[in-house]
Amino acid sequence: MPALSLSRRLRRTPFSEGVEAQGVTAYTVYNHMLLPTVFRSVTEDYRHLKEAVQVWDVACERQVELRGPDAGRLMQMLTPRDLRGVLPGQCLYVPIVDETGGMLNDPVALKLAEDRWWISIADSDLLYWVKGIAYGYRLDVLVDEPDISPLAIQGPKADDLMAAVFGDSVRNLRFFRFGHFDFNGRDTIIARSGYSKQGGFEIYHDGTDFGMELWNALFEAGKSMDVRAGCPNLIERIEGGLLSYGNDMTDDHTPHECGLGRFCDTQTAIGCIGRDALLRVAKEGPVQQIRAISIDGAPVQSCDRWWPIMANGTKVGHISSAAHSPDFDTNVAIGMVRMTHWDAGTAVTVNTPDGPRDARVEEHFWA
Amino acid sequence: MPALSLSRRLRRTPFSEGVEAQGVTAYTVYNHMLLPTVFRSVTEDYRHLKEAVQVWDVACERQVELRGPDAGRLMQMLTPRDLRGVLPGQCLYVPIVDETGGMLNDPVALKLAEDRWWISIADSDLLYWVKGIAYGYRLDVLVDEPDISPLAIQGPKADDLMAAVFGDSVRNLRFFRFGHFDFNGRDTIIARSGYSKQGGFEIYHDGTDFGMELWNALFEAGKSMDVRAGCPNLIERIEGGLLSYGNDMTDDHTPHECGLGRFCDTQTAIGCIGRDALLRVAKEGPVQQIRAISIDGAPVQSCDRWWPIMANGTKVGHISSAAHSPDFDTNVAIGMVRMTHWDAGTAVTVNTPDGPRDARVEEHFWA
Repeated sequence: MPALSLSRRLRRTPFSEGVEAQGVTAYTVYNHMLLPTVFRSVTEDYRHLKEAVQVWDVACERQVELRGPDAGRLMQMLTPRDLRGVLPGQCLYVPIVDETGGMLNDPVALKLAEDRWWISIADSDLLYWVKGIAYGYRLDVLVDEPDISPLAIQGPKADDLMAAVFGDSVRNLRFFRFGHFDFNGRDTIIARSGYSKQGGFEIYHDGTDFGMELWNALFEAGKSMDVRAGCPNLIERIEGGLLSYGNDMTDDHTPHECGLGRFCDTQTAIGCIGRDALLRVAKEGPVQQIRAISIDGAPVQSCDRWWPIMANGTKVGHISSAAHSPDFDTNVAIGMVRMTHWDAGTAVTVNTPDGPRDARVEEHFWA
Repeated sequence: MPALSLSRRLRRTPFSEGVEAQGVTAYTVYNHMLLPTVFRSVTEDYRHLKEAVQVWDVACERQVELRGPDAGRLMQMLTPRDLRGVLPGQCLYVPIVDETGGMLNDPVALKLAEDRWWISIADSDLLYWVKGIAYGYRLDVLVDEPDISPLAIQGPKADDLMAAVFGDSVRNLRFFRFGHFDFNGRDTIIARSGYSKQGGFEIYHDGTDFGMELWNALFEAGKSMDVRAGCPNLIERIEGGLLSYGNDMTDDHTPHECGLGRFCDTQTAIGCIGRDALLRVAKEGPVQQIRAISIDGAPVQSCDRWWPIMANGTKVGHISSAAHSPDFDTNVAIGMVRMTHWDAGTAVTVNTPDGPRDARVEEHFWA
């Protein structure tokens, strides 16, 4: 791996000091912020994530806040998901699309109140789009990036660790719900959510003044649980079919192509900016779609560019994420495949930088 | 320096292969794309940039294209710089501001035709803001990111190298003008511009199919000129007072605070979205402003977070970029300083991570 030159532009987080003390060895950059990618090794971090509990600095999941009388209207303009029944306290995965139906981001939205939303964003400056729309439509709403820095607790022992710090009531939080909890006298929003399939929580740390106090409390309480610093794990997230904006999808793709059609209520999402563009694709379906793909042979290297998926000498798609899975003893991958070849069991060839590999379209992701 | 984990989300460029072959040792991430930061060492790259000629992969300067009858109107909405007299063939440095006058980007705009502009952006997804405004106002304009990848040729021998590849007519290009030149039968836009004070050009490579052909032609022609791969150099750009969006300024700052008041014609830039907000600051002036600052003592480490500037125990600003300059034998820095302490010659203290240092506000940048 090459080195990363640090500068203020790649923002540190309230937890960076803790991340460094825990021996981070590699980062990526996400929303102009440092996101750890490796502590001991991707494989060792993976094993530990599935067996114990990890604390993840995901401050880079920046928030776009909508506040004011038109917050709800604006939120619905952004997504083809019908938001009418949503109650305060709910989290929702919401594809965000432009006027052509192209994906601009795939965040989780939190409805804080009837007139207040947070959008917990993937890697693009969604703030700019939302501000542009709010301004262009002269909406009565305040849009900004408050200094909220999520800290994720992930792994099978996440409930125990969280209960030790926030009290047993946090165990009652249902999936994709959030509540207010006390931390040393500070009101803190906690959601049962996170970018792994191992279960866990996201703590929405407000401001920068108690980041390390929170970090240290979690590590102190988690000693007996073998708590470690961790981060979104490449292998685990591919096994679980968790998509990554910029890797697996871009603004060239519709939600339907990304397999996110189940989060689209295109008929009823009145007001959604991309609705007209998506009505046809919602009815007829996409011509290419994201699929789980297994790739034969030795462990693949990291997928730093799209690898062509070939069949009979013709390109029928591309791989966007890949890693070797110890648990499933194969190379697990995410790819975009044309409908002619997307049926489960279809044999294809993947042109990796090391040469062509036999590969197969899978029925489901692995976990 | 920590390692950088590569993934497709951190996009490669048409020149990545050449950059790797030339021995890049570190990157930063800029507009979701790889931007080299070091080849031999920052100091060795600096010396070479000032003496010879370098080829820079600045494909990360992505273009936002505005095309259509309302392109000119939209362009003026984005900036407080009065664009009325601008002719096709001109480049302009244009502060881009939101409705509060906060900086969203500080790009160079190229007027290609009356109804067509490129905005060669700094590190933020300006595309999202421009698309949002265009959509909100129902403007008759097409806004997208075409696949244009600039390649910069910088250094005192830049004219010679460019003439060897594109012919002597390229020497006649005036500063911040661009023209069309032939490269192996392909029409290519070349501007006399670039992110250094050593002089040079930017070649707007269109598409991805002849990137390495262009790269190799430049290295072949430049053998006798000691051409090397290079990149924006931290020391040289601070000496020259070249600001970096995300480092030296953010959306919290007005153009006037960034010392960009001379690029603002706030009275006459009718239609500019931030005009109302900027009228007062244009008249009364900002309360803090960017200054050149010299920092005493041993070479400073890289400035990966804002360093407080103190005077009599009170914070009066922050340093945002710093490096040791061999040529000026001091630590050169860029900082934002309150008006109480911004006069040239004012002695201040900079709290670096290594401890406090004596520092001084300078009259000018160094180069």
